[in-house]
Formats: sequence, structure tokens, C-alpha cells
Amino acid sequence: MEEELTPVSALGEFGLIDRLTENFIPVLESTIKAFQDDAAVIHYDSGDVLVSSDCYVEGVHFDMVYTPLMHLGYKCIVGSISDIYAMNGSAKQVLVSLGVSSRFTVEALEELYGGMRVACKTYGIDLVGGDTTTAKSGLFINVTVLGNAERKDICYRNGAKPGDIIVVTGDLGGAYIGLQILEREKRVFLEAPGAKPELSGFDYVLKRQLRPEARKDVVEIFKNMGIKPNAMIDISDGLASELMHICAQSETGCMIYEEKIPIDQSTYTIALDFNIDPSVCALSGGEDYELLFTINPTDYEKIKNHPDFTAIGHITEKGTGNKFETKSGNVHELVAQGWKHF
Amino acid sequence: MEEELTPVSALGEFGLIDRLTENFIPVLESTIKAFQDDAAVIHYDSGDVLVSSDCYVEGVHFDMVYTPLMHLGYKCIVGSISDIYAMNGSAKQVLVSLGVSSRFTVEALEELYGGMRVACKTYGIDLVGGDTTTAKSGLFINVTVLGNAERKDICYRNGAKPGDIIVVTGDLGGAYIGLQILEREKRVFLEAPGAKPELSGFDYVLKRQLRPEARKDVVEIFKNMGIKPNAMIDISDGLASELMHICAQSETGCMIYEEKIPIDQSTYTIALDFNIDPSVCALSGGEDYELLFTINPTDYEKIKNHPDFTAIGHITEKGTGNKFETKSGNVHELVAQGWKHF
Repeated sequence: MEEELTPVSALGEFGLIDRLTENFIPVLESTIKAFQDDAAVIHYDSGDVLVSSDCYVEGVHFDMVYTPLMHLGYKCIVGSISDIYAMNGSAKQVLVSLGVSSRFTVEALEELYGGMRVACKTYGIDLVGGDTTTAKSGLFINVTVLGNAERKDICYRNGAKPGDIIVVTGDLGGAYIGLQILEREKRVFLEAPGAKPELSGFDYVLKRQLRPEARKDVVEIFKNMGIKPNAMIDISDGLASELMHICAQSETGCMIYEEKIPIDQSTYTIALDFNIDPSVCALSGGEDYELLFTINPTDYEKIKNHPDFTAIGHITEKGTGNKFETKSGNVHELVAQGWKHF
Repeated sequence: MEEELTPVSALGEFGLIDRLTENFIPVLESTIKAFQDDAAVIHYDSGDVLVSSDCYVEGVHFDMVYTPLMHLGYKCIVGSISDIYAMNGSAKQVLVSLGVSSRFTVEALEELYGGMRVACKTYGIDLVGGDTTTAKSGLFINVTVLGNAERKDICYRNGAKPGDIIVVTGDLGGAYIGLQILEREKRVFLEAPGAKPELSGFDYVLKRQLRPEARKDVVEIFKNMGIKPNAMIDISDGLASELMHICAQSETGCMIYEEKIPIDQSTYTIALDFNIDPSVCALSGGEDYELLFTINPTDYEKIKNHPDFTAIGHITEKGTGNKFETKSGNVHELVAQGWKHF
């Protein structure tokens, strides 16, 4: 028996909000009041408030052909809270605004919110508000995240100093390669709608694309080790673009080495199968949500044996340029391909 | 000589953000860091953080045929900060996320942000962040507003008590009538594109629709008079719907009187010309952004001679229903038409 699907119009705006948020029970002490009023009320016992908004648009940031709604909900939260960790802060509350066309049923939106709920639980975050409206077509999601940090702990992009070691967490390029696989299977599907997608063996890169994680753990590691990076940013648009943000704002140059960039073995192998340079995936592919930071050489000693951290180069004086040395020893100027959606 | 227009693609995402925000210079002490990093940093010396998000979608919330972009920018800020005043708080910072199709030029978006800048200046608010992305079609704007208030001063929707006087600020229904005029002139224009819109004599209601104001002043009046409403909400969806929110959350009934509802003379006259009951405009027309609150009878004595406040009825015991007495003395159950966009 097929499940009966409910059009959003059957619930109306307030009914839909109630239905989507009924399973979100705030748990944080800092959440004083969530939903059901003109604004949410939050209280942080100390420190500064960190706040950031990110917008995800169907056809621009995600493709409904191969993006399960559960994963999409999870990823929107993760991608947004990543910005708070990139400030060396604690993400605490999110507000989600949704614009949705009549194509989406209540059940579909419940899946989306189901994924958000898992993300909130995983990262210890409360959904406290937002807005829900119709869109003429498609789906868009805006996530605003609030968090806090002591002023002295906050890491900006503009604090890098010549001599700093440049470090990245995890590995890079996987999310981009995952996207290439999904795009390939979409083309196959559109040409032969009966064809089954060939996704086996691609688990790691597909997970990197469809269900990424944010590096909350890294902020905790810094805290436990008594370390504060001089500059930090999250890698959502590709390593090159993010590093150039740090250098521009810090008024420095940089030198990084291709051979040091951490790339997972499966990312590497599949990239070659696609005839894509794996380093380009790391430099210009986005959505890895790893952290990029610069650190005093003395602090680097403390973390250099940690498997999640890789030193890829160092910060140089202003005017020396942003340099990239290839495995063959050639030195190029870094170019920020980034993620051009305009 | 015609002005050269710039496609958004000529600037790219980061160039566009820089261009749109370059004239927004944060002025508040509480704004520690705006833009240019992963998150904005805010510090309130005391009290709780209030936060709310509102989404505005082309074709749902506004029609580009008759909405000047300057006014749209102004209205998006005003409609959003109204939620903070409705908590009896101070609005302080906003984040704006924009989804924009290639139809919009950089110059058009500068007009939009120009209107936002005027609103920020008028209300003493800093724009501190947001996101800018493409949309497949049209334009959507999400505004997140942050503010603060001492815990003891915050007015929720759920604090109304039987015997409370129900009060509204300003007058109601004007924004809805303004919309009817704009819709009529749009129809005329579509039938005869050369026709000039007839807008003279409609200044007040057009201003209510296109360039509304938020009641920051009312929060200041409460402060100066040492008054705290028991419950408060802003009227964005129509008086009936908002009052029913208060009664549902406070577990009370209410009784309001048609003859007491404040309606401006021009709203009244034009409504009759349109064969619309002026009271229906007040009850079910949205976007007036006035405040609706309930107050102890003893506190009401303090404000009853203030020209901006009108008592329209009182809160009753739970189970007595939400009642509306017409001018002819008939009593009806209140119905929340609200603003159904689903």
C-alpha cells in the first residue's frame, strides 16, 4: 500500500512549522526560548556571540536528482556550523528559513528536517527558529547559526604572520570527486532511465559530498592542548581560495607544497580515472569543510604528530606572492578558482 | 547617455559582496567584527540575545512590477526588526542572505542595499553579514536580526491574563489597502501598458504598504513609563491572527470591539471605494507592523491618553472563545484569515 502524501497547502504555514519542528526539543541551557514567539531567546553566560548565515539553493548548491533529502538537511546544518568552528568557537543554535515550491510534500520536508535533526543531535545544537514560505520554484534553505567564544580565543582570518606553519585538517578534494561521480551517474540515468547507478566502491568520496562533517573536534583539540591558531578559515570553496583569503586579510604571502597536500587514496585514484589532477580537486574543489589554519612554529610542535593535521607550507612576507610548488619542483602563483556560481 | 549596467557575473560572489556592503560601516559598540570572516562577532554587555529570521520571496511577498528596490530593501529590514521590538527588546544587528537571478544587475542590487542602509541608519542597526548566491529565477531575501533585552523585560506571547486590556499601536488595514491600489494599477498597466498609474491621493496607504515603519518608539515609551506588557506580538499577518496567537499561547479568550479598532480615515474611505469592509482590512490584512499587546488595567491608565495607543477590548477566561462584537452589537467568533501563501 502506498503511503498517502500530504501537500503543504493542507497544513498551511503555521501547521507546517509545527509539524516540522515538533521533534526538535531544545536541550541547551543557553536556549531560553525556541519557536512560538516573535524571536528566540538565548543566553550565553560569557564571551561573545558568533553569528553566520549560509544559503543553499536547488540547482545551484544541490541537485535533487541525486541528493537524498535526509542528507541535504544534514549537510546544510554541517556546512553552516562549520563557520563557527572556523572562528574557534562553539556552535549552539540554528535558525532555518525554507522557501519551498508546491512540488515538495510535507513528507519530503519531514525527511529534510529529519536530517537536520540528526545533525543537531550529533553536534549538540538546538534549532530555535526560522521562517517557512513558498517559493515559485524549487527549494532554498537559509541557515543562520549562533555560537559563542571567549574574545581571547576567537581566530580571525587576518592574524597570520610570516613564519607561521600552514596546516589543514583531514584530507581534501573528496567532496569534489564525489560530486563528479554523482554527476556521471546522473548523465547515465538521463540517457537510460532504467540504468542502475554504479556507486559501489565510491563510499568515501560519496560520503564526503553527501554527508560531510564539520570539525567541532578540532576546536576541542585546540582547547585541550592550549593552542590558538593565528588565523583560521573553513575550506568550503577549495584550499586555494581560502588560503588567499587568509593571506589577503593578513597582508602576507604564502608558500605551499603540492606533495604535502593531504588527499585520500580513493580520492586520488578516482580523480585519475576521471582524468582530473587530484591536486586540482584539493585546491579548487569545495565542500570539504575541513579547517585551514596558521600557527606559530612552536605551537605546531604540539600537534605535528596528530594524524588529523597536515602541515602544507608556511606564511611568507607581504609582496612575495601566494606560491605553490609542484611535485616536480616548479613554483606557480596560486589561483583561486573557488566556486563560481555567478 | 544611458548608464552602463553591470551583470553580477562581472563581479563574482566576493566582488558583489564587497560592492554591496562597502557603504555599511558598523557603528554599534556591540558589533565587534562585521563581514570579512567566517562569522560576525557581537558582544552585548548584559541581557539575553534575541534572534529571528524572516524570508521575503519575489512573487510571494512582493511584486517587482510595483515595488521600487529601495523600498523593498527598507521594508525587509523593517519587517524583520519588528519581531525584536515585539519582544520588548532592542534590535541591533542584521544578516542578509540574498538569492538573485541573472535578471538583476549590480546597480539594481545596490538600490536594494541602499534601502537597507537607510533602514539601518534610521533604526540604529548594523549590517554584519549574510550570504549572496544565485537563484534560478527571481529574488529572495532572508533577514536574520539579532537584538538584546534584559530577561525581566522580555514580553512573550503567552503572558496574557484575563482582565488584561488589549491595545494596538497606530492604525490598521492601511498596508492592505495600499496593496489593493497597487494591484489595481498593475492590472490597468498590463491591459494598457502606456497608461500612467493613478496614485495621487493615496499617499498614506501606499506608504503603509511600500515603506512601513517598525515601532521601536513604543519600546522606548514602555521603558520611559516603566511599563511592561503581559503579552506582545507584532501585527504582520492581521489583527485577528495575531490576537489568536496570544490567546492560544496564553490559554485565554478575548473580546474585541469593531468600533474601537483604529483605522485611518483614508484607509476607511478607500476601502469603501473598493467595496471592502474596512474592519476586514484591519482584522485580516497584513504588513502593518504595528504592535498588539495586553496590559494590566492599572498600567493601561498610564498610557490611555497617548495618541498612538488604542484599547480595543480585553482578555477573557479560557473557554469563553475569541469574540468580536460588531458595531451593530452582534458577537462573532474571531476567524484568522491571516496571510495564506501556501
